[in-house]
Amino acid sequence: MLIGELINTSRDAVRMAVESRDDSFIRELAEEQEKAGADYIDVNCGSMIGQESEAMRWLVKIVQEVASVPLCIDSPSPEVLELGLASSREKSPMINSVSAETERFREIIPLATRYGAKVIALCMDDGGVPASADDRVKIAGRLVTDLSQAGVALDDIFLDPLVQPISTSETAGREVLRAVDAIRSAHPDAHLVSGLSNVSFGLPSRKLLNRTFLVQLMSAGMDAFLVDPLDRDLMGAYYASAALLGLDEFGIGYIEQFRAGAFE
Amino acid sequence: MLIGELINTSRDAVRMAVESRDDSFIRELAEEQEKAGADYIDVNCGSMIGQESEAMRWLVKIVQEVASVPLCIDSPSPEVLELGLASSREKSPMINSVSAETERFREIIPLATRYGAKVIALCMDDGGVPASADDRVKIAGRLVTDLSQAGVALDDIFLDPLVQPISTSETAGREVLRAVDAIRSAHPDAHLVSGLSNVSFGLPSRKLLNRTFLVQLMSAGMDAFLVDPLDRDLMGAYYASAALLGLDEFGIGYIEQFRAGAFE
Repeated sequence: MLIGELINTSRDAVRMAVESRDDSFIRELAEEQEKAGADYIDVNCGSMIGQESEAMRWLVKIVQEVASVPLCIDSPSPEVLELGLASSREKSPMINSVSAETERFREIIPLATRYGAKVIALCMDDGGVPASADDRVKIAGRLVTDLSQAGVALDDIFLDPLVQPISTSETAGREVLRAVDAIRSAHPDAHLVSGLSNVSFGLPSRKLLNRTFLVQLMSAGMDAFLVDPLDRDLMGAYYASAALLGLDEFGIGYIEQFRAGAFE
Repeated sequence: MLIGELINTSRDAVRMAVESRDDSFIRELAEEQEKAGADYIDVNCGSMIGQESEAMRWLVKIVQEVASVPLCIDSPSPEVLELGLASSREKSPMINSVSAETERFREIIPLATRYGAKVIALCMDDGGVPASADDRVKIAGRLVTDLSQAGVALDDIFLDPLVQPISTSETAGREVLRAVDAIRSAHPDAHLVSGLSNVSFGLPSRKLLNRTFLVQLMSAGMDAFLVDPLDRDLMGAYYASAALLGLDEFGIGYIEQFRAGAFE
């Protein structure tokens, strides 16, 4: 499952389009991502301090005019999340994100149940982002317990192990892969999700590292990714990986995507 | 560990060079592979029926004139293997390959011990290539026992799980990955090796599938590959994968290879 990450005001072109209410730019970005294979379209305007609510309302409206896939409402603010969820036409949008931090969990969980939303749940708590695989697995276990207790179905939980840059700790990638493997075994009915770009921070040829990490994460059992679906090399790695893991009968999906020109 | 696979007379240009005894072509191919990172240079002239012995003798001589890395002597014939090993200047060349087939094992093992060679051991027996991961693991166990008993050190054993095309069985890739994982756990001091191109037989964009499978195999614990080291995209995937798995302190090897222009 792919969540298209491009509608994010931390990207200059998107911020400018939102500030000038350039609806055709945003529409096109939504359409292109869906066409390229996005199953969800993430909408994030968290960088627009003081204007986030209006920006979110406008973005959700514009994106829904063209996208037939559901949205992933992405904000640090419970108010903006609620506003995005309330404007969502879909019965089951996605919340990006909750965590095991006490306050964040308490504020956001009622939204998940009220809107029947899927939930990205970050494996961090009041102690911050854990360094080891074991601590990630423990927090994932608590999140699954607490989310289930709050009424969120396992199939609606997307656990994010929180990828850190390998340039600051060479075990950062390996620990996340170990965590994914363990969380997949412990919670086979929940989903695992991640963004990719953190892992390559500070290193050259970042897209190569990002797509290589995608392949490793899929092998370890991750099944959802926050990505740029317009990155053809990345999409090639995604379809090749699925075919090699036998997720794609006789490579038919791979062949179809190749014929459709999704990658070289 | 990378074994350069390009000196193989099943490739037309190499066959022509061998037939015309074009030593500069072969020298260049050996030099280029070593420069690109090959730790061993495979020499295979098995396609030259009736002339294989002379071709092997000539190839080993020419390659050794320029290569400082050891050779991997690759032949279905015990006689040709012995001839290649005897001409090898190195104390520890590699034999490609033995298997658990009764006759092949009996004929080739004496060569391994006589020449102190490293041994690629194919996970197949008189019943052919196994379909399941479990059968591969069983044969690997027998090979490790029998090779150890014959006096081959664990560090000199390179188990090849025998990759089959995913176009004929969509579980072919997954079963090999499961086998690699299990063999790595059972025999942590032995090596695991594979070629890559079989997996993509019959599918488009084969190099994409091959390098994606390399990443998956490395994640599962494989540590040696028979590859084209001149394929820059493949080498990029190899170095990126090593950095992400923490095999490369702070990504320094990755950065060095990037600066040296090994990949984009």
